[in-house]
Amino acid sequence: MPSHDTLLDKYAELIIRSGLNLRQGQQLLMTAPLEAVDLVRRVTHHAYKAGASLVTALYSDEKTTLMRFEQGHEAAFDAAPAWLFGGMAEAFRDGSTARLAIIGEDPALLAKQNPDHVARANRSRSKAYKPVIEQITGFATNWCVVSAATPSHARSVFPDLSPDKALAALWSAIFKCTRADQPDPVAAWAVHNKALHTRVKLLNAKRYRALKYKGPGTDLVIGLVHDHVWAGGASEARNGIICNPNIPSEEVFTMPHRERVDGTVCSTKPLSYQGSFIDGISVRFEKGRIVDGTATKGGDVFRKMIETDDGAARLGEVALVPHSSPISASGIVFNETLYDENAASHIAVGQAYSQNMKDAGTMTPEQRLAAGMNTSLIHVDWMIGSGALDVDGITADGKAEPLMRKGEWVE
Amino acid sequence: MPSHDTLLDKYAELIIRSGLNLRQGQQLLMTAPLEAVDLVRRVTHHAYKAGASLVTALYSDEKTTLMRFEQGHEAAFDAAPAWLFGGMAEAFRDGSTARLAIIGEDPALLAKQNPDHVARANRSRSKAYKPVIEQITGFATNWCVVSAATPSHARSVFPDLSPDKALAALWSAIFKCTRADQPDPVAAWAVHNKALHTRVKLLNAKRYRALKYKGPGTDLVIGLVHDHVWAGGASEARNGIICNPNIPSEEVFTMPHRERVDGTVCSTKPLSYQGSFIDGISVRFEKGRIVDGTATKGGDVFRKMIETDDGAARLGEVALVPHSSPISASGIVFNETLYDENAASHIAVGQAYSQNMKDAGTMTPEQRLAAGMNTSLIHVDWMIGSGALDVDGITADGKAEPLMRKGEWVE
Repeated sequence: MPSHDTLLDKYAELIIRSGLNLRQGQQLLMTAPLEAVDLVRRVTHHAYKAGASLVTALYSDEKTTLMRFEQGHEAAFDAAPAWLFGGMAEAFRDGSTARLAIIGEDPALLAKQNPDHVARANRSRSKAYKPVIEQITGFATNWCVVSAATPSHARSVFPDLSPDKALAALWSAIFKCTRADQPDPVAAWAVHNKALHTRVKLLNAKRYRALKYKGPGTDLVIGLVHDHVWAGGASEARNGIICNPNIPSEEVFTMPHRERVDGTVCSTKPLSYQGSFIDGISVRFEKGRIVDGTATKGGDVFRKMIETDDGAARLGEVALVPHSSPISASGIVFNETLYDENAASHIAVGQAYSQNMKDAGTMTPEQRLAAGMNTSLIHVDWMIGSGALDVDGITADGKAEPLMRKGEWVE
Repeated sequence: MPSHDTLLDKYAELIIRSGLNLRQGQQLLMTAPLEAVDLVRRVTHHAYKAGASLVTALYSDEKTTLMRFEQGHEAAFDAAPAWLFGGMAEAFRDGSTARLAIIGEDPALLAKQNPDHVARANRSRSKAYKPVIEQITGFATNWCVVSAATPSHARSVFPDLSPDKALAALWSAIFKCTRADQPDPVAAWAVHNKALHTRVKLLNAKRYRALKYKGPGTDLVIGLVHDHVWAGGASEARNGIICNPNIPSEEVFTMPHRERVDGTVCSTKPLSYQGSFIDGISVRFEKGRIVDGTATKGGDVFRKMIETDDGAARLGEVALVPHSSPISASGIVFNETLYDENAASHIAVGQAYSQNMKDAGTMTPEQRLAAGMNTSLIHVDWMIGSGALDVDGITADGKAEPLMRKGEWVE
């Protein structure tokens, strides 16, 4: 078996080549937890090798994040680094700077803090971050989200292992799920992208009006916007660069209609939202809006989340993932959306991606809204798939075609 | 003797209280080397205790800085993070965000790199950084520069000690020179500021037309701008907050006239400029401009430095420091301007501080230039003091009054 350093280097190269497809002369702006410094350095190495003009890493630190909630004065929770986010949006706008997010925070970091303080801080942050999210969801530049194993995250995934073994186990799972452990990870991603693109083409040809979900606690119809576009795997950003925005990624996804979602749905995996766990969600939609909802864990956080703004209680994304995906097959619950969303079909409340509707990039905000595209400060994925889920595609004339049975593609 | 952790905590508290005088509701923006993370965390702790609304730390990493020069493509050296510096300038402009720079980089980090690449990268960076420097030199907000001991910097100061001992020796010197090792460092700085302010008051009352320097290799007259203001120690920023911009600080300083400097001067300590050492500088000024100059070490870097722009070969600051200052008394050459400049009288080429001329803050750029205020992308301090330096003040009617003899204040 290759050494950890060899695998880390292959992973970093995969991120630069397949994830970002970084071009000569581009700047790279990375965010990462301090504990991911080794990966940041390998990524930086491959970025300069690929011709990056400048690599900037912005680090987050769980210890200081926690200090704010533990020691901050009451008035301290409505501030956000708008100055920094304004600068980041500026960097992405013309596509000259690529964006890499390395995630790996403790999913329960803020679980013991005052939920009102956490909600206020998150709301301020989301609001200030909006200029950045608009550039990313609008695909102004090539971007990619990946994960690094960190001690606190590894502990949450493998609570019964020693710290060293937990960290090693999480890295091993990351290398496997991202195909970084394969002899030629870049070639493996080319094959994988081809399979996703075939599925996307099939679905786009169908022009379904809606998707119908049936499963334990789930009986849901999700209308799709008229000019919806299914996407998955590598996508072309507005700067002309084809990138893989998520590594790993097993999903195909499109745009729900913000006013045409009806029925009940249950979550099938826990969800970590800005430092707290939410589990056992059960909600009812009426005309696109969550009108009734509970969660067996983190109910307060869930309620505050969908109250962020009007669009936070409506859908912005619907994604299909076979139950047999490699991430699901690993049997690991990663407590991290990037991985868990690729283990199961999911929906997301909040902001929609303009790539999922034809011409959304050139529409006015009013036109987008009229077409059914959702908008919000947040975008939170939420797993509803399992080995017991059936999904039908509803055609323009109302006929139901089986898409998934017991969580697997029918064809 | 108190433990390292106790001293580090006292140092952090001194930085927040005396250095920045951070106010409730302010944000704090910190830059620091990765190796200074322990100090960053203690500073963050005291910032939130003081009521900071948000603390953001931007880390630099010697390893990735070096990768750029070792692996970057030829075209890679003209880029700078203008998006980030634009955001920083925005944060400081209204005085709502305080600025802390924690320094501690290897002073010779880039010494072996292609000097043309280094000069190009520094020039691009300085140019992009100008909006920030303008806010800082214009005192838009409370700011402070301090040092942290890092392994690479400690090695350069104590090359004969083991890594652990070198690091401990540098921390010990830092705690001593900053008065963090005194029982009440904040009170000690109040006393120290009082002494500096008394000296400033004396010098401001004199209204000297020029300063005259005599020493080995030095025979120099530095004209002062007509409405010059001597400053030193704590100063009031435009947001009304009194801060200590440098910890340590032993200097009193004012504004030279950009066209009235004549004669020769020799440097008395090595100078680290953006990753390279410069030593044994000897230059001749004519009408304010360096017309002839050599350095026994780093001559290329020195030449490129003063060729950055027109103002880079003219003076922006003149500072007097007694030879018996605690930093000089330590006998340590710190290879870091923040410390070494406080061990000796010095001059700086490049940008002048507007606090050093009456009403400079409200003048147009043309009016400032006409009054003799220098402007440049750079500001580089440069030590010329020693136990052999004599300094006279030249009064309006041309009389010479002894200010310093053998490096010490006459009164």
